[in-house]
Amino acid sequence: MRYSQLFGKTQRQVPKDEVSKNAQLLLRGGFIDKLMAGSYSLLPLGFRVVKKIEQIVREEMNGTGAQEILMPLLHPKSIWNETGRWDSAKEVMYQFKKRDKEFALSFTHEEILLDLVRKHIRTHRDFPVKLYHFSTKFRNELRAKSGVLRGREFLMKDLYSAHTTQKDLDKYYFEVADSYMKVFDRVGLKAIQVEAAGGVFTKEHTHEFQVLCESGEDEIIYCPGGDYAQNVEIAEAKEGQQCVLGHGPLLKAKAIEVGNIFRFGIVYSEKMGVSFTDEAGKKKFVYLGSYGIGLTRLMGTLVELFNDERGIIWPKTVSPFDVHLVHIEDSGTEVWAKEVYEKLEKAGIDVLWDDREDVSAGEKFADADLIGIPVRLVVSKKVGEGNVEVKKRDGDQLEISTPDKLIKEFKS
Amino acid sequence: MRYSQLFGKTQRQVPKDEVSKNAQLLLRGGFIDKLMAGSYSLLPLGFRVVKKIEQIVREEMNGTGAQEILMPLLHPKSIWNETGRWDSAKEVMYQFKKRDKEFALSFTHEEILLDLVRKHIRTHRDFPVKLYHFSTKFRNELRAKSGVLRGREFLMKDLYSAHTTQKDLDKYYFEVADSYMKVFDRVGLKAIQVEAAGGVFTKEHTHEFQVLCESGEDEIIYCPGGDYAQNVEIAEAKEGQQCVLGHGPLLKAKAIEVGNIFRFGIVYSEKMGVSFTDEAGKKKFVYLGSYGIGLTRLMGTLVELFNDERGIIWPKTVSPFDVHLVHIEDSGTEVWAKEVYEKLEKAGIDVLWDDREDVSAGEKFADADLIGIPVRLVVSKKVGEGNVEVKKRDGDQLEISTPDKLIKEFKS
Repeated sequence: MRYSQLFGKTQRQVPKDEVSKNAQLLLRGGFIDKLMAGSYSLLPLGFRVVKKIEQIVREEMNGTGAQEILMPLLHPKSIWNETGRWDSAKEVMYQFKKRDKEFALSFTHEEILLDLVRKHIRTHRDFPVKLYHFSTKFRNELRAKSGVLRGREFLMKDLYSAHTTQKDLDKYYFEVADSYMKVFDRVGLKAIQVEAAGGVFTKEHTHEFQVLCESGEDEIIYCPGGDYAQNVEIAEAKEGQQCVLGHGPLLKAKAIEVGNIFRFGIVYSEKMGVSFTDEAGKKKFVYLGSYGIGLTRLMGTLVELFNDERGIIWPKTVSPFDVHLVHIEDSGTEVWAKEVYEKLEKAGIDVLWDDREDVSAGEKFADADLIGIPVRLVVSKKVGEGNVEVKKRDGDQLEISTPDKLIKEFKS
Repeated sequence: MRYSQLFGKTQRQVPKDEVSKNAQLLLRGGFIDKLMAGSYSLLPLGFRVVKKIEQIVREEMNGTGAQEILMPLLHPKSIWNETGRWDSAKEVMYQFKKRDKEFALSFTHEEILLDLVRKHIRTHRDFPVKLYHFSTKFRNELRAKSGVLRGREFLMKDLYSAHTTQKDLDKYYFEVADSYMKVFDRVGLKAIQVEAAGGVFTKEHTHEFQVLCESGEDEIIYCPGGDYAQNVEIAEAKEGQQCVLGHGPLLKAKAIEVGNIFRFGIVYSEKMGVSFTDEAGKKKFVYLGSYGIGLTRLMGTLVELFNDERGIIWPKTVSPFDVHLVHIEDSGTEVWAKEVYEKLEKAGIDVLWDDREDVSAGEKFADADLIGIPVRLVVSKKVGEGNVEVKKRDGDQLEISTPDKLIKEFKS
């Protein structure tokens, strides 16, 4: 894509109330736009990042045998009354009345999912059920100061599973945990699986996936050797205490929660009457699991972690483009750049070409650093016709290469 | 996919208040589930159909040079007040108050889009702007009796364009009209481009894309030769009147609106102060176009048009699977079917394999007809090892073929 045609250029100023690094950099880079506190549009650059994250999550969810669906966002009060969450979760839910009927906006989908199971599943042979969707969540957060880390409206992948036994739920629960670690690994994050409290969702302990980060809202106590990690909310051990396996003292650190998984067991299915007939012909309640990853939050986490004073540094797998092409305005170099652009695009490499006229090389370089595509290519008289100068966003080394060499490297 | 594992099997009964053919067949086929009046979940089969429609629409939108984004669904009252639509469209909008702030749910996105243009575009060189998204729309319809043809919550592709002149808007407007015709053609619909009134959207005439259908809510007067078509709401000519180009008498027919396009001109941009600096340094208002296709409505239209007494007949391009494989329960045929299944899947052909045990051949055939995948394959002792019996959903002819032949046909 030609940068001159891209909607959402780099910005010098960001709204004054944006204090988080992720919102500042995403707004300055032209990835998002702020509609109101806690609510953002994804501009083409941000949309591309989220779509790449989405595809990675989709592949890993499909890998667990889950099927993709889409559930509605507007829910009748009656269904939330079945579990009592119309009242117990009313702080976080957007609830309203229209033509004498009361509705809530989706802040999660357990009730809707259980209603599907109730209507479509008959016998034990129809289990397990594994369904997920990518959809919008609305949460009436008191404060919305963390950019896309905690929006009032945001994108989430939520997976739900229903099983005939606790044992089967447990088995799938840890399969999903593994698939989550794969997701985080693929997007470039080192996540720690942490025991935690269930918040408004459940009284049982749950697992969160936390990424160490100074700006995180959570705090965890963990063993550097990886055999213990709990959210401070429930932590039994203390910072500095020795790990029983000899990995040294436990550490305490701020972290961002990038995913969470819950075992609800039969709590909600009992309330909603979601049952099946077992092999002996007996009616039993369904065991429910629930598993979330916030897509927009994941994007924000990546920005919080991967940046420097000049801008964002995207991991390759979620970068909006593969390479950022800049030509320096000597006469003739635009033609050279166009050749490079077309050659790379034809080979399936996504190129953001800064083709703007009347913009200095310095400004183009600064914008490239702010946007943060992992590879920058420069075409100039100095570099010479047919060549490109290659620089990684996270390094300083300059290398001379050719489009053909680059294509080979990208394919390998 | 094995049908035994698919969530959302065929249903014998549908909710009593479902009078529309599209809802009845989609519910019975296991494509959708009804949450409440006018609101449906997409189950895996329905989700697949909508995703195929979405991808066709995306390709055609990208073909016009448009860029994909995602705008929020929850909007502040203030932005709707700028155009006066908070009041003028209040019947159709879901509006509510939360913590002393008023919000509306997205029923369209012109205001949000113009706000983006206002913030991100500076000079005439940044035009035209062409942005689209796939997102959820909420419309507080009085009646919701038409299944997915008129939901209270539904999926829509909306494209918006902003231009520096009426002429440039006109040019792109008709480019989009052409791309819409391509979309409808690709999903298997014969659409007629019809002049119409703008409803709550604009006082100007607009264009609708109508598909002739007895169950449609619209009525159009049109020339069978294709040179005149108007919605009866604004029609100047009468049924039976001779077409001036000699194509015979004008016809009147019921139709379903599958798309619409609007030229708002500067009406809203003037109200919202969305301007740019022209070449002479003068401030001018932006010309806005708006273009919609309802994805779920498109699915419903296909079902209304393509069905028989046994079920749905999907066009190839949007069918949830390429082939429906059934094996007849003689001993051994399951192994043969598995071989066919794996061979076709490996070749990139999407197979729905009805692998259920204890279900009669007759029931399997009835389900295959209800679900409506265009090609049915049967494996049985009679057909013989290594062979498949092929039947098109819209025909009666049975043919004997082999997986290899089928793969060749699919690839050609």
